[in-house]
Amino acid sequence: MAASSADPSAPSSGPSPADPVILARDLVRCASVTPAEGGALTLLGGVLAAAGFIVHRMTLSAPGTPDVENLYARFGTRSPNLCFAGHTDVVPPGDPEHWRFPPFEGAIAEGVLHGRGAVDMKGGVAAMAAAAIDHVKATGEALPGSISFLITGDEEGPAVNGTEKVLRWMADRDERIDHCVLGEPTSRAALGDMVKIGRRGSLSGTLTVHGRQGHVGYPHLAENPIPGMVRLLAALTGERLDGGTTHFQASNLEVVSVDVGNPAYNVIPAEAKARFNVRFNELWMPDTLAAEIERRLTRAAGNEVHFSVAFEPRSSDSFLTAPGPFVELVTAAVEEATGCKPELSTTGGTSDARFIKDFCPVLEFGAVGTSMHAANESTPVTELVALKAAYAGIIARYFEAFGR
Amino acid sequence: MAASSADPSAPSSGPSPADPVILARDLVRCASVTPAEGGALTLLGGVLAAAGFIVHRMTLSAPGTPDVENLYARFGTRSPNLCFAGHTDVVPPGDPEHWRFPPFEGAIAEGVLHGRGAVDMKGGVAAMAAAAIDHVKATGEALPGSISFLITGDEEGPAVNGTEKVLRWMADRDERIDHCVLGEPTSRAALGDMVKIGRRGSLSGTLTVHGRQGHVGYPHLAENPIPGMVRLLAALTGERLDGGTTHFQASNLEVVSVDVGNPAYNVIPAEAKARFNVRFNELWMPDTLAAEIERRLTRAAGNEVHFSVAFEPRSSDSFLTAPGPFVELVTAAVEEATGCKPELSTTGGTSDARFIKDFCPVLEFGAVGTSMHAANESTPVTELVALKAAYAGIIARYFEAFGR
Ligand SMILES: [Zn+2]
Ligand SMILES: [Zn+2]
Repeated sequence: MAASSADPSAPSSGPSPADPVILARDLVRCASVTPAEGGALTLLGGVLAAAGFIVHRMTLSAPGTPDVENLYARFGTRSPNLCFAGHTDVVPPGDPEHWRFPPFEGAIAEGVLHGRGAVDMKGGVAAMAAAAIDHVKATGEALPGSISFLITGDEEGPAVNGTEKVLRWMADRDERIDHCVLGEPTSRAALGDMVKIGRRGSLSGTLTVHGRQGHVGYPHLAENPIPGMVRLLAALTGERLDGGTTHFQASNLEVVSVDVGNPAYNVIPAEAKARFNVRFNELWMPDTLAAEIERRLTRAAGNEVHFSVAFEPRSSDSFLTAPGPFVELVTAAVEEATGCKPELSTTGGTSDARFIKDFCPVLEFGAVGTSMHAANESTPVTELVALKAAYAGIIARYFEAFGR
Repeated sequence: MAASSADPSAPSSGPSPADPVILARDLVRCASVTPAEGGALTLLGGVLAAAGFIVHRMTLSAPGTPDVENLYARFGTRSPNLCFAGHTDVVPPGDPEHWRFPPFEGAIAEGVLHGRGAVDMKGGVAAMAAAAIDHVKATGEALPGSISFLITGDEEGPAVNGTEKVLRWMADRDERIDHCVLGEPTSRAALGDMVKIGRRGSLSGTLTVHGRQGHVGYPHLAENPIPGMVRLLAALTGERLDGGTTHFQASNLEVVSVDVGNPAYNVIPAEAKARFNVRFNELWMPDTLAAEIERRLTRAAGNEVHFSVAFEPRSSDSFLTAPGPFVELVTAAVEEATGCKPELSTTGGTSDARFIKDFCPVLEFGAVGTSMHAANESTPVTELVALKAAYAGIIARYFEAFGR
């Protein structure tokens, strides 16, 4: 089954180190497509419990969404509590014909682990767990703080019954975390080339322009909403929202759909709809941004265009964990384990860090994301070993810096 | 059954005049929703044959469209041939709950004929037929020309197996018409207030803007087609096509739909489509207009927006029957019968006159169109009687002016 860091034929002294490759492979073999648990949390919980972690499992639910299983585990009772966060759910594998190896077989071939979740992010979960298990086995009760895991089964789905609710469950129990590393795949070309210190916020909405239906032959009796929509969309996209900040790109609005759905060439439609999403930086909050969008639309509409705009209830704030001791120890550990000096980035989509940032500083670091969500998702065995080493370095440096 | 022009209790001398109300009612009772003949052409053909017309029936067909029945009938063999054109097919009645009287019952109540087609245009067909029958009964062989009827069952449908093909059938037989009156409902508020001397042409097309799909979090890796679409639509609608002519309104372009169909807020779509229709005057032909639209799009697109545009194959030219002796005799007859001096108009949608204009001068005059295509379509009995009188006046004046 190819090389791994726990080659049983190698001579060893003391307990053999935890193997991130075997754990990653075993996790891949759990078909945990959101919202299915697929055995993944049970497997992880068992491994952590065997190493002395107290493991909590919680099934969370909300009307209109499927129930989802989640896990919180902790070794130690003292502060500070370094939390590793992540998810074991995966996106669907798509057409099995597109895969070289079955997506849930966990095949290891030519030094590469193949399968759905190998990158996003069962590989990361396995590397974090292996690093933490080795560390607590070495320190035992002498650990000057705690190590914990917040692992959800609802990251790739609606994210309603996942991290956000587990954090609330923890707050209800005064279960406090002090710093968090989220193990999402953040590396771009080489392991260690990027650490995310923040993410932009996200706000979505629907713009409706109201007109009056009629026959194209009699346009004066109708009111075509489409020229008004063109005018409003030009105003919405024609002027930038800001010029970016030290750590963030400029905020960006994308109109993702425009829909009228009129099948007839001889009918002027009554209504046109456009849907948009804004990824925004620390200069905005969802409510200030919504107000700015309404101001621009109102100004462009004048008295001529009748419109309404509705924002989606589930927006997310931006977050930033500003450079400082925590950022420095993480980047130093990553550089030591990978040879790459990571870029500190705030680009890309949203992640569960948007929930965690309300509780403690959070960073994101993990595997090379190239093949995530695609067919033939795979990660080299050497990358899993290096990833474990990076997380191990983070743990060691963390307790050097913050341990009591 | 209310008053009609053929009150059997009234004293009469000679043959009793043809009754447009009874004929209109009997036609309404034929459920001739396109493409169904519903007995309407058989009824009309029988009435015309009884008056001495030679009646031809032709079932026309084309791949992908239903077969449709049509009628051509002629009294006399000499020139000039005055042709009355129209259709007996009707649009569907919609929800029967919305009708005071069943749509195919032909109820006459309080002096009003109710039913689908009462206005558009079984009332007109009945009035034209009644006027022509009276005239040929009076003149017999002495008619200094011919009177003919070109009645289709495919005006409200795709119009593929209707007037256009009947005209080709006639051309193949050297069956020539010299002037045509199309009996569509042209009156607006009062019978006789409008005669159509032309119609704008119609050209439809679809504009596609091509982009590259991606994630909203990484817009630089994608290419959103929507801002390009907004730019092209602004260029297409921002500048008028012309200022109108003596007889025509300005040409007008309406964007009737814009569609992307992207259900996700976090995905930048690959493509956006817009559909448009132009109603254009005598300053344009479909090909010159298509070229102008392509020129505007190309100029607005520059090198940044990738687009393609496709025009629908079934465009129609504009037509104009310029004021002259024929227009004058028709308007004089209409004014005499109705007391209204008709406005000479070229407004509104297209009609089968777009086919007839290639063969002879054509005008359109008929009922008040307010209730056409709606529930409770209805026409006062007095209007049918006046309509017959107007057509009778047209026939009399036509042969005075053009008869040999
Ligand atoms: Zn993930
Ligand atoms: Zn009609």
